[in-house]
Amino acid sequence: MIYLHSIIEFSHKLLQEHITKADVALDLTVGNGNDMLFLVRIARFVYGFDIQTEAIKRAEEKLAGYDNYLLINDSHENFITYVKDKYKAAIFNLGYLPGGDKTITTKAEITLRAMKAVLENIEKGGICVTVVYPGHPEGEEESRILFDYLSGLNQEQYQVLKYEFINQINRPPYILATRRMR
Amino acid sequence: MIYLHSIIEFSHKLLQEHITKADVALDLTVGNGNDMLFLVRIARFVYGFDIQTEAIKRAEEKLAGYDNYLLINDSHENFITYVKDKYKAAIFNLGYLPGGDKTITTKAEITLRAMKAVLENIEKGGICVTVVYPGHPEGEEESRILFDYLSGLNQEQYQVLKYEFINQINRPPYILATRRMR
Repeated sequence: MIYLHSIIEFSHKLLQEHITKADVALDLTVGNGNDMLFLVRIARFVYGFDIQTEAIKRAEEKLAGYDNYLLINDSHENFITYVKDKYKAAIFNLGYLPGGDKTITTKAEITLRAMKAVLENIEKGGICVTVVYPGHPEGEEESRILFDYLSGLNQEQYQVLKYEFINQINRPPYILATRRMR
Repeated sequence: MIYLHSIIEFSHKLLQEHITKADVALDLTVGNGNDMLFLVRIARFVYGFDIQTEAIKRAEEKLAGYDNYLLINDSHENFITYVKDKYKAAIFNLGYLPGGDKTITTKAEITLRAMKAVLENIEKGGICVTVVYPGHPEGEEESRILFDYLSGLNQEQYQVLKYEFINQINRPPYILATRRMR
């Protein structure tokens, strides 16, 4: 390697190190489908959630040729209604749909509720990777709320890692990765 | 992997990803010699510095069988006097010597001067990995001073990564890794 892993690279690396072809994964924020495409290649099955039909449509195109996934056009706070399998990994890539309507972003309180449920039900040894975008107002609030919640988790039950570049202007995205230990 | 890389593991991983058998590395805080032992196996040559003769002695024992290193019983702020090669990697593992005199710790201002010199002279593409221990008073000051300095580095010249577990009690160690880009 001739550089430090970028936020997106490191988020995928963390997922890859925790998922095998026997495992189920969740993408709680389908967006343009890039994380889904990464996950269907390494997991047995992937559930993807997005409230925007545009995101679901884009992801479907990107996933042509794969059949080990289900895209669900609903809020991620309802994920448990659809997911009956045990799951080993989850990703939240927060913020707004790239190239889409920037007024439609993930909302801090909804994200927090969804994340709590994801962490309560994830398999032991499983990981929830969150890419946080504090550079816009709603994202800043989301960043604060998620950090407060995750930094308070019992260290016997969860490991919470922050991976962040600290000398970049404009509050760049960073990673909060939570691994369930028991 | 069934867990997130610990601070020590990740510090070694970063070094390994930047060093080849053609490269020179520096250990600015020899301590018990564990980082030296890791470095002599992957680098062409390693310079190690420590102000405590006890640390130098322990490291010498640990490095028995290797000849690609030089241990120097002097402060790391004088490293440039001894190192005439170009170097690709450096590690600062701050705090006090494990099992040694806890009143002898790295000092914030000296560490900062040494780090500035290390970063000015490191090869392009090289990395300086710092393990910071904010859990004792001098370490807390050191943590603050290093963070302030590194977070102000020009992002066109250096990437500065912070790798930190955020839900552990007693202010655990964390990593600040600085890569020179140009």
